[in-house]
Amino acid sequence: METPEREEVLAAVEASVRAGEAPEAWAGRLRALQPFDVAELLSRLPEDGRLAVLAALPPDVAAESLEHLTPEVQYRILDRLGPDGSLTLLLHMSSDAVADLLLSLHPNQAARLREALPLGYREELERLMTFPEHTAGSLASVDYVAAREHWTVDEALAHVRKVAREAETLNYVYVLDARGRLVGVVSLRELLLASGGDRLGAIARRDVISVRATTDQEEAARILARYDFVALPVVGDDGRMVGIVTVDDLVDVIHEEAMEDIQRLGGSLPLRESYFRTPVLGLFRRRVGWLLVLFVAESYTSAVLAHFQTTLAQVVALSFFIPLLTGTGGNIGSQTVATLVRSLAVGEVGFRDILRVAAKEALTGVLLGAAMAVAAYVRAAMMGVGFPVGSVVATGALFIGLWASIVAAVLPIALHRLRVDPAVVSGPLITTLVDGTGLFIYFSLARLMLGV
Amino acid sequence: METPEREEVLAAVEASVRAGEAPEAWAGRLRALQPFDVAELLSRLPEDGRLAVLAALPPDVAAESLEHLTPEVQYRILDRLGPDGSLTLLLHMSSDAVADLLLSLHPNQAARLREALPLGYREELERLMTFPEHTAGSLASVDYVAAREHWTVDEALAHVRKVAREAETLNYVYVLDARGRLVGVVSLRELLLASGGDRLGAIARRDVISVRATTDQEEAARILARYDFVALPVVGDDGRMVGIVTVDDLVDVIHEEAMEDIQRLGGSLPLRESYFRTPVLGLFRRRVGWLLVLFVAESYTSAVLAHFQTTLAQVVALSFFIPLLTGTGGNIGSQTVATLVRSLAVGEVGFRDILRVAAKEALTGVLLGAAMAVAAYVRAAMMGVGFPVGSVVATGALFIGLWASIVAAVLPIALHRLRVDPAVVSGPLITTLVDGTGLFIYFSLARLMLGV
Repeated sequence: METPEREEVLAAVEASVRAGEAPEAWAGRLRALQPFDVAELLSRLPEDGRLAVLAALPPDVAAESLEHLTPEVQYRILDRLGPDGSLTLLLHMSSDAVADLLLSLHPNQAARLREALPLGYREELERLMTFPEHTAGSLASVDYVAAREHWTVDEALAHVRKVAREAETLNYVYVLDARGRLVGVVSLRELLLASGGDRLGAIARRDVISVRATTDQEEAARILARYDFVALPVVGDDGRMVGIVTVDDLVDVIHEEAMEDIQRLGGSLPLRESYFRTPVLGLFRRRVGWLLVLFVAESYTSAVLAHFQTTLAQVVALSFFIPLLTGTGGNIGSQTVATLVRSLAVGEVGFRDILRVAAKEALTGVLLGAAMAVAAYVRAAMMGVGFPVGSVVATGALFIGLWASIVAAVLPIALHRLRVDPAVVSGPLITTLVDGTGLFIYFSLARLMLGV
Repeated sequence: METPEREEVLAAVEASVRAGEAPEAWAGRLRALQPFDVAELLSRLPEDGRLAVLAALPPDVAAESLEHLTPEVQYRILDRLGPDGSLTLLLHMSSDAVADLLLSLHPNQAARLREALPLGYREELERLMTFPEHTAGSLASVDYVAAREHWTVDEALAHVRKVAREAETLNYVYVLDARGRLVGVVSLRELLLASGGDRLGAIARRDVISVRATTDQEEAARILARYDFVALPVVGDDGRMVGIVTVDDLVDVIHEEAMEDIQRLGGSLPLRESYFRTPVLGLFRRRVGWLLVLFVAESYTSAVLAHFQTTLAQVVALSFFIPLLTGTGGNIGSQTVATLVRSLAVGEVGFRDILRVAAKEALTGVLLGAAMAVAAYVRAAMMGVGFPVGSVVATGALFIGLWASIVAAVLPIALHRLRVDPAVVSGPLITTLVDGTGLFIYFSLARLMLGV
């Protein structure tokens, strides 16, 4: 089913539900939709329509659809469903989604939902809820398939069938010891290939790749991507299994981290929520800090210009090219930083490479500076400022290009070494650092070459 | 197994292999490694060591390890293995990896490998190889589980067991008709829950979410992330199944696309290869185009300054604040663009929101401009330029903040509407556009407020 078709089905079901048609009239088309699409439908419908749609779906599909909605909408629906209806859905939702929901509700609302849950499950959830945001533990789900070493392959397969409906992934069966510690893993593939009488203890892989619950989610995403796994087990400090993080959660993490890197590179703290959910004051607060830091750093430029004010007063034409030269230096620095920051983040470039990178960027900077020198000379000639000023501008462009490249190559690598997130080195920061020093180069050249 | 342990095992096996110890001495530790780690080991070893390691591994693990190496190293190893050894590995490699390998080798080398393959598989590969880079087809693998409608669940499960070793994922069984067209899908979960005698035709989901082979890989990644699938079927224009793209390939796509967005935002064309594999001239070429475009756009600033040269000559102190004001405007614009570009890319913000976003950013811009105005006035006072010039600088900061926010809000949305990739609106581009117009605002205010 491709996108236009999907939109048609959505619109048709929406119209039928809004018209109050009996479920038999639209339930067939509804079942053709994936949970993500059902969620889209639910978000378009008034509350009564939502309840009608959920009632017409098998509980596992209804629960998965609910997971795609915001916590407020989830709560409003669960509240309307009453204790029994909401319990059924909560038990069919994946445990990481339930934990997220409980964490984002008002404590009173959360308590009301929590009370309905069976005690054992509630305890598992409460454990998941203790892990801070951005850790692997905070993404973990307890809906995994666990088995014991002495089980046979046939017993394990029978168990897989039994829990198939609840489990988030069937790809791996995790072997736990009597104390709940993770001691091995068998993939479903291996299970299907093994003979039915084999013991899991004999076929399980012992060196299980796992992460700690306190591991950063970005690190977990990196490990999962590296090994091409579909899920990664998460263990506590005591070695006991906490749950699994699945690839779909980590795809969201990768998207989120890229978004954060981009915002930091743009010179802003990353937003905590989506753009439209962040109020104006929130945008202001995420941006004003860096702006003030950059402003103070940039203030240096006014000191440089004041220092050279006699030169400036004598040759006013020099000032015409200030934004052109600082702008070009900033652009070259920004290009270099954008290229390096991501290579640093994925580990392709490290501190050991600092000289190699600096040399490479210096060479590129000379070439770019030379190209900009030609452009600057042409522009100066067009402005009719004469050969001497034109030469100063062109030479300035060359040296600023070289300088900007070196600063933008060395700074992120050095800060990365100091464990500062390299994305803190934003384009604006490099631009600011290069502005003042670039002007110093420019006016020093002017004094030297023009003798003013 | 956590990272330090893994490094120890790697080093120990490497030492043993280099010392020429018999495989029995290290094969046990070798088998504890995942294919990704084996690839790391292979890349550290001399050629003879590589062959010894591969010979000590089951062919499916050896083949998967090979997939993590560069095409050149893959070819060198396959060449040394001779026709039989290389055929075994090629048949165990996933078909998208083999297609990639064949496409990146010299035609003569590719032909030599291709000749060894069985005819049917060769034809399937050749079909995969026809799809251009960055399409879903170019990532597709033919190693999926296919079944027919009239099969029973038990027959399908027996088939899954039979092909388990070769298939890239067992999560879905794709139901094809006699002409190879995709007509349904059954998840392994559903297969395990169904009764053994049911026909696939009766339990398969009909409205299969699929992508065309010519669909952009980024779009495929988006669909997969939206529906939380582990694999997505790829069909040709004739509806015939081409293969599947799996979530691990699409995780790589997401990383790649984020990297490209970041480089574009930094004002550079994205590199085609990794940083160290791109020569200096390559870096130069990816950057110089935008630099020249920006230079020409920035040239406007020198015209603005020339236009106001009498004002400048009369009040030289005004020039001290040029980089501060253009810098602040550029920073505010760069923050706004970084926030919006990604929201545009993921579809959170669209053309319909242009007024809403402009209003929100204008309000934020006024607040940021006011904060910067205070900072600018303080700085002007510290420089001792007097109240009148200080007021001009402060008022300039306010208006430039407002203006930069609006430009940076409206431009990416408008260009997105015109189907220009919003990431082309880089920080440097906004900075450049805001520089000239910002100076115009500043000097107009100076004329108005100082009467010069």
